[in-house]
Amino acid sequence: MYELKDLNSLDVKLNFLQCGIDEFSQTSGIRRQLSGLRSKSRVKVRQHKLIKFKGIDVRAQQNDLFGNLKVSNFMFLVILGASTALQQLIQQFSQEQTCTQRYVQLLDKICMLDIVQLHLEYYSRDSEGSSLPEMKAVLAGVHISTFLSIRAFIGKLVGVTVAIVGGLSLGRYGSFVHMSGVIAHQMSYRIKFFQNIGSNYQLRLQVISAAIAAGTCCSAGSPFGGVIFALELTSTYYMMGNMWKGLLCTTAAIITYSLMHQLPFVKPPKLTDFEEYTFNHEIIFFIILGYLCARVGALFIHILTKIIFLRGKLKNPLLLNRWKWCSIVILFISIIQFPLRFLHFPERQVWNVMFNSHQISEVQNGQVWSNPNLELVLLVYCILKFIFIVSSLTLPLPNGIFAPMISFGAVFGRLFDEGIYAVVGATCVYGSVTKTVSIAIIIFEVTGQITLLVPVVIGLSVAYASSQAMTMSIFDVLLEFKNFPFLPTLGEGDTIHLKARDIMNRNFVYLREDSEIREIRDILTQFEDFNYDPKNYIEYEELLSLEKKLQADLQEECSKV
Amino acid sequence: MYELKDLNSLDVKLNFLQCGIDEFSQTSGIRRQLSGLRSKSRVKVRQHKLIKFKGIDVRAQQNDLFGNLKVSNFMFLVILGASTALQQLIQQFSQEQTCTQRYVQLLDKICMLDIVQLHLEYYSRDSEGSSLPEMKAVLAGVHISTFLSIRAFIGKLVGVTVAIVGGLSLGRYGSFVHMSGVIAHQMSYRIKFFQNIGSNYQLRLQVISAAIAAGTCCSAGSPFGGVIFALELTSTYYMMGNMWKGLLCTTAAIITYSLMHQLPFVKPPKLTDFEEYTFNHEIIFFIILGYLCARVGALFIHILTKIIFLRGKLKNPLLLNRWKWCSIVILFISIIQFPLRFLHFPERQVWNVMFNSHQISEVQNGQVWSNPNLELVLLVYCILKFIFIVSSLTLPLPNGIFAPMISFGAVFGRLFDEGIYAVVGATCVYGSVTKTVSIAIIIFEVTGQITLLVPVVIGLSVAYASSQAMTMSIFDVLLEFKNFPFLPTLGEGDTIHLKARDIMNRNFVYLREDSEIREIRDILTQFEDFNYDPKNYIEYEELLSLEKKLQADLQEECSKV
Repeated sequence: MYELKDLNSLDVKLNFLQCGIDEFSQTSGIRRQLSGLRSKSRVKVRQHKLIKFKGIDVRAQQNDLFGNLKVSNFMFLVILGASTALQQLIQQFSQEQTCTQRYVQLLDKICMLDIVQLHLEYYSRDSEGSSLPEMKAVLAGVHISTFLSIRAFIGKLVGVTVAIVGGLSLGRYGSFVHMSGVIAHQMSYRIKFFQNIGSNYQLRLQVISAAIAAGTCCSAGSPFGGVIFALELTSTYYMMGNMWKGLLCTTAAIITYSLMHQLPFVKPPKLTDFEEYTFNHEIIFFIILGYLCARVGALFIHILTKIIFLRGKLKNPLLLNRWKWCSIVILFISIIQFPLRFLHFPERQVWNVMFNSHQISEVQNGQVWSNPNLELVLLVYCILKFIFIVSSLTLPLPNGIFAPMISFGAVFGRLFDEGIYAVVGATCVYGSVTKTVSIAIIIFEVTGQITLLVPVVIGLSVAYASSQAMTMSIFDVLLEFKNFPFLPTLGEGDTIHLKARDIMNRNFVYLREDSEIREIRDILTQFEDFNYDPKNYIEYEELLSLEKKLQADLQEECSKV
Repeated sequence: MYELKDLNSLDVKLNFLQCGIDEFSQTSGIRRQLSGLRSKSRVKVRQHKLIKFKGIDVRAQQNDLFGNLKVSNFMFLVILGASTALQQLIQQFSQEQTCTQRYVQLLDKICMLDIVQLHLEYYSRDSEGSSLPEMKAVLAGVHISTFLSIRAFIGKLVGVTVAIVGGLSLGRYGSFVHMSGVIAHQMSYRIKFFQNIGSNYQLRLQVISAAIAAGTCCSAGSPFGGVIFALELTSTYYMMGNMWKGLLCTTAAIITYSLMHQLPFVKPPKLTDFEEYTFNHEIIFFIILGYLCARVGALFIHILTKIIFLRGKLKNPLLLNRWKWCSIVILFISIIQFPLRFLHFPERQVWNVMFNSHQISEVQNGQVWSNPNLELVLLVYCILKFIFIVSSLTLPLPNGIFAPMISFGAVFGRLFDEGIYAVVGATCVYGSVTKTVSIAIIIFEVTGQITLLVPVVIGLSVAYASSQAMTMSIFDVLLEFKNFPFLPTLGEGDTIHLKARDIMNRNFVYLREDSEIREIRDILTQFEDFNYDPKNYIEYEELLSLEKKLQADLQEECSKV
């Protein structure tokens, strides 16, 4: 019983269908088969061709370093990785410069916000939001017309940079991934050398997947985490042969990234120093923490859904108008944030304080956290951060969930006990909200330690499994709100009962090669308000002339009768 | 342009084909479509059903912890993980016990070998070899009748245990994965509670994938590495919804594993202590090392292929006979190994010495390596280990490539310089031989450190990309030799030009439901030496009786004429 489940790409499927129809439509099936058996030589030739394609021919390939890896693809991935790392430099540099003047005035903030929004409103609306849900949709094959345009790139770059200069704490993770995706898309279209990528739909998707890996790698310095995150963002099936492309791209990115961090003006992230973990009864607390994190994640998604629904339902002009809503939220966040010093830290500094084996009061900036009382400050931070993240996700600004969510999770974990719980909490909260496993590897790479392997894996798997039962991933929720087609996560065996007719779109009219004019007439008479959308059809002109001719024919026929 | 590329599983494809035929076989295509458009209500009901299935209904799921995760599946994965860890205990315990009496006599060794081989020959031939290629084939949908039987489990367990007691240095990695797979397969069939898994082909494959993750996790103590290795062993497309099942299973395994290591009689693996890596010019050496490792990996596969071909070609009874060949190789290995003390260490101890930031002579057992000269010893070890691994892979014994290959790579890397190169070398050699990325994460988890992230990722991606151009993975090579269907690694865009007819097996005769007796007669007359293989057809008896009846009919017909 050998089932060819490995060649499932759509084009093959369509050909398969065609082939099946050709063969089945003939009633003398057996006779045809027998003749097929006789012409074994033909089959052999075909098999040989196939084997050569598959790359079994070991000897022929050994002469060529690049073998089945085209030079242009190799170059493409390296350039993509390096340029992703370089654009990170620009952003990090601008952030470092403004890091000193931390107490930006309230008016400044609102002013900057308005610039960002003005820019986005009239320049590129595609730069709004986290971009990760959209990237997921792109990977699944949804074509979003202007999402990967240069306009979106500039919009994102300017938007995020101005926002950071203005002191708004926005996640930059999604923006890296988005910009990296734009670079990949534009390079494959605009540069003639990479034309083979631009003209091949499958290859283009693979390259965008590699871009996601590079973007993740640059924002957190985590090459393997990036590759696996790109893999997890693929909603259903991942093509394994694609993995090393992602790896190559992240390698180029990490080399550039490492080079950058040798330069004096960018500080490398601080590595943590946890002792080796010895297995003990604490494991029960990690399980409890994992479950609680899943609950918090579910609550987060629930509240986010409620807010978005309510905004639409209340029809209050103050809430519905983008500008007013945005100003209200930012004003609200800024006013609360202003007197509380522990809310002023950039996310990275929060991580450095939390992911630490020492007491909080002992580390740098630690005094702020333990004044007046450590537990109280952590609790207040948790509650406020939760509200801030939820409300800022509803804004039409370029923002992310990665960095704030990790901060929230870290503080939430630290509420329990020492630094180990912060690491586990951050992993669990982010893992349960986004339904990703790769976060564990990203956290290991960010903290530079893997000693907490056992607690993290236990917490994450509990959080993942219980959140699996509670809600869907935040990416899918945001996609739903943006009216993209739902991308199901297959996994349960129930798919076995699904028939193709359950999912296929049968709601359209088509003509076949051997369709008769009569059928076209049927369509035209049935649908009097039949509209062609000229943008979608290249051969619109041809069709138009055909239609005119047809209607003339029809009139002629009618006049005859 | 939205393409439903996400529902590609085979059953759907077949239904799709069926559906297509039904629809296309009617000539009044357009009319049918128009009627379809009218019955939109029907479509809506179906869509609603579908959406409910996909789990969008957030609220309904929040009431139930297990939601779309069935309790039986959850239990299954936990039991599978725990039992995999427990069987590791048995093996490790037996190894620890014999570790003290390291200098087993030559005769003892041959004797033990014969016991193992006798056992395998007459008890279970499925326990031979590394088992990882077979697991890859199983994941791809190849049905190997007795490979996942209890017989194979006992064969493997006894074989490996006796071999280890006898002092043969065999990899245990493949055997863990194999045994874990058998546990998963047998549990799903034999235990009534898990019947829903046994009866569902897709779910069974997912469970076996989880078993591979658990097996990997137990042999190296690497939960995330295990999950990602299981993912990479899938030859073409991986279903992402399956990932958390693997994670749950490895979590159960790692908890049991950690509990075990608290017990006094099993020593935990030693963690390494590298300093934080700072990026410098050394990066060029890592690139060179990566390329050299890819060359060595290609040479390894080339020589292995040559030896297997030569054995078949020479037709020398001394080489072809399993017993004689096995005795020759083991005698050869043992005689060379006997006087050289550095070849006596178990693999784990070699790793501990190599993966070390100190000088070799300073660490425990280090003196053996630097006597008479460190470089000479390392070089001799490399050459001999290379020969040993290649020759032992041709033996009909349960053996693996993971542990010996890592040792070889570590020493090869150490030939360059300090411990960092050992880690990079081990990762690169194994990664290029097996074409896996997960090895990096496994190595991080084995060494308990992630500080060498940058060198490892650079070396590995160079090794992977260049070996991609040189040879295929060793798993595929071994599968080729065992005459399993080739499992292509898709990835290049060239697949877009492949038609289904290029890969489908058209070289068989079939009957359709509406086939006439005449067609059966055609087949019987065409193939006079037509053989049924009674093992392969369950309904052989039925077919036999039909054939007899047919031939009686034929004779009757002939006599009439």
